[in-house]
Amino acid sequence: MNVAETVQPTMRSFVEALPAFKAGNQSPRQFLEDCVNAIEALEPRVQAFVATNFSAARAAADESSARWRAGQPLSPIDGMPVGVKDIMETADMPTAQGSELFAGWRGGRDAAAVVALREAGAVIIGKTVTTEFALASPGKTRNPWDPQRTPGGTSSGSAASVGGGMIPAGLGSQVAGSTIRPAGYCGCFGFKPSIGSINRGGSFDPYSASCTTVLGATLADTWHVAREIALRAGGDPGYPGWSAPADLPAAVKPRRLALLETGGWSAATEDAKAQLRRAARALADAGIAIVDRVGDPSIEAVELAIASALPLTMEINAWEGRWPLNTYARDMDRARLSEFALGRLQAGNAMTIEEYQRLLQERGRVRSVYGRLAGRYDACLTLSATSEAPRGLQSTGDPVFATPASLLGVPAISLPVLRTQNLPLGLQVVGFLHQDTAMFSTAGSLLQLLKGDGRA
Amino acid sequence: MNVAETVQPTMRSFVEALPAFKAGNQSPRQFLEDCVNAIEALEPRVQAFVATNFSAARAAADESSARWRAGQPLSPIDGMPVGVKDIMETADMPTAQGSELFAGWRGGRDAAAVVALREAGAVIIGKTVTTEFALASPGKTRNPWDPQRTPGGTSSGSAASVGGGMIPAGLGSQVAGSTIRPAGYCGCFGFKPSIGSINRGGSFDPYSASCTTVLGATLADTWHVAREIALRAGGDPGYPGWSAPADLPAAVKPRRLALLETGGWSAATEDAKAQLRRAARALADAGIAIVDRVGDPSIEAVELAIASALPLTMEINAWEGRWPLNTYARDMDRARLSEFALGRLQAGNAMTIEEYQRLLQERGRVRSVYGRLAGRYDACLTLSATSEAPRGLQSTGDPVFATPASLLGVPAISLPVLRTQNLPLGLQVVGFLHQDTAMFSTAGSLLQLLKGDGRA
Repeated sequence: MNVAETVQPTMRSFVEALPAFKAGNQSPRQFLEDCVNAIEALEPRVQAFVATNFSAARAAADESSARWRAGQPLSPIDGMPVGVKDIMETADMPTAQGSELFAGWRGGRDAAAVVALREAGAVIIGKTVTTEFALASPGKTRNPWDPQRTPGGTSSGSAASVGGGMIPAGLGSQVAGSTIRPAGYCGCFGFKPSIGSINRGGSFDPYSASCTTVLGATLADTWHVAREIALRAGGDPGYPGWSAPADLPAAVKPRRLALLETGGWSAATEDAKAQLRRAARALADAGIAIVDRVGDPSIEAVELAIASALPLTMEINAWEGRWPLNTYARDMDRARLSEFALGRLQAGNAMTIEEYQRLLQERGRVRSVYGRLAGRYDACLTLSATSEAPRGLQSTGDPVFATPASLLGVPAISLPVLRTQNLPLGLQVVGFLHQDTAMFSTAGSLLQLLKGDGRA
Repeated sequence: MNVAETVQPTMRSFVEALPAFKAGNQSPRQFLEDCVNAIEALEPRVQAFVATNFSAARAAADESSARWRAGQPLSPIDGMPVGVKDIMETADMPTAQGSELFAGWRGGRDAAAVVALREAGAVIIGKTVTTEFALASPGKTRNPWDPQRTPGGTSSGSAASVGGGMIPAGLGSQVAGSTIRPAGYCGCFGFKPSIGSINRGGSFDPYSASCTTVLGATLADTWHVAREIALRAGGDPGYPGWSAPADLPAAVKPRRLALLETGGWSAATEDAKAQLRRAARALADAGIAIVDRVGDPSIEAVELAIASALPLTMEINAWEGRWPLNTYARDMDRARLSEFALGRLQAGNAMTIEEYQRLLQERGRVRSVYGRLAGRYDACLTLSATSEAPRGLQSTGDPVFATPASLLGVPAISLPVLRTQNLPLGLQVVGFLHQDTAMFSTAGSLLQLLKGDGRA
């Protein structure tokens, strides 16, 4: 590693500036200008954005500043600059989905989550890089800690821009490891809610287990963005969504945590595993019961059930993703689809509806095995990825540690509290279905115990 | 009624022409030309289409004709001309959603169901009129039996073009009464599957209880279109979909049918109710036990539970439909939205996520009450609408009889076997969750018993 190229970015919290906005010592417009300066300084190196709209952002920030001056902010994220993963529609910027097929594509609409952000006063500053169709073909983004390394995918630009300190929060998505993994690699927070909790209307995201997610500079920034969206946009149609309280819930020290190896254990580096063990020991020293497969057969049953989470997810996604890949390949320009996308389509086309039904049954079985831990543990603990961000930009890394929470439909959060090779390593907290708020309370406690201040 | 203006159209079955295709006595290209001639003759009066693409249809029909000549059709609907409700994307025609906002809009893609139709060899002949965003503001279409009457909505053009004898089948959708009601008014078959059974990818249809549906000239045409789509496109992501056999299942005389009044009973005309009673008597004479609320308290419980199906559905839809109406109203041209659409948006914006959660709970309760009839009855029987198609084009009629099946998520089919005022009146068969195939067996028997030949 060329040490000269490695930097430790400072993340940029909006929530920490709220007292200054209230006191009139700072304005969201000033906050925005700091973000714009950071983007202009860092973007040549990181390349997190596909598009920015600084003039619209400035107008929105000025309106927000006026609301703060009048003492009438719309929400705790009124004025917060937010990046939007480029699979989600924005009325004022194109939505290219990381594909040449959609370069410059404009639908004229905002996605449901983007409408909610604007209604809460947030400032949509730009569109962040995604892999092609949120699949495997990487975009241009580099890791903000080391440009020779991947930021992870598929929410590459949101993770890199937040982890790199350009903006306080970005929207992402996850159906395999697209948020937890890049959050781990880039050293920011990453929150994937319970299945169906954030309305995906206007996001090009056809997968049944996929969620719109939030990457944030602090636990509080992450919370407020997710909460203000969920409140206004609701969940996916037919899902109860997430009725979250207005404020980040107080940290609550968990009594029992289940330590999960997952199917990623054999792929994890020795040091990554050692860092997880060290964190677990620190939590045990603080009086939390840390239980693993040796101590509880029901944890072993979960590990067995989720061992194939990644291949199971990939098969389900292959069927669910045939459309729209099939119409892209036939009705648009097939030559502009990656080999990966064409391979995925081929895999989906080789499947039958009966095979898909069996996969759904298996997913249901795995979910019920995991559900038996609810009530007996406050959360599960594992890594966010197998290692620090790998060198090279041809792959976005291995999602294996992040996939179980997506398959299970349960909430998960990556906390930037571990280090390996002087680079970020995420600690993943996995909660239980529709208990997202409780998971944040647990995460808040772990942050305090492991880092003291809740910042990476 | 001006009798001179009323005609009895002859529907146009594709399935009945299959023996001629096999024998080489007719070709799908010839069948298509008959459809084109019918459209050119009837369209000035009925106005069922927003767009047609006869040149692409002819090319597709020629390819199909070659496959039939070679004895290698792709499916029983290879060569079938099908109309597509204009909320569903088509690569070769605009998708306007019945809204001035989207006049001429082209996404370049086919919806999942349209991809499946083309893969099965079907010929996409045109886009059929929908009400604005499949809500309440009517399009231009008129009833093929009497142009002074509504065709019903929201799948107006598909029902009118099939009922009018222009084409053998059209795609529709239903979340309240958008298929069963216009099928009843126009005298064609209308099939709404179990919730989630047909992939809605690429359909502008954000409602949790909504389904892509089929309007057909015969029970067999309806079956084959639905089945060939469900086989290839699968269901909505996360739903098992519909594993249907290749052939229309044999008619099976039901043993017990539940007669349901629904919340529409008080709005139904005396003659419509008399026609339903007469049909029920005929079925009883054929040895089928017809049980009503007087005979079984569990039927009374269902009637009580579904009495508010329409207002409950409208409230759920108001919340679920805020997006995309909110971005249309703010980011596009608000003046081009109907009063109805703006009122719906206002109603949704006045709701909270907690109110929506309560509505979902109530929907779950109603579904479980209905589920108790499964296994005890082969199906339920009711009307498809309160009366014949009403005069006037300002309203698409009352969906009250059709809404329960949508709310319940269960399959339903409208059979064109009744008449009132010399106009069509649909007999609605309502089945049980994921028992769509069994419902077709029952429907086939009722057709034989009530009409003899299964044709209107």
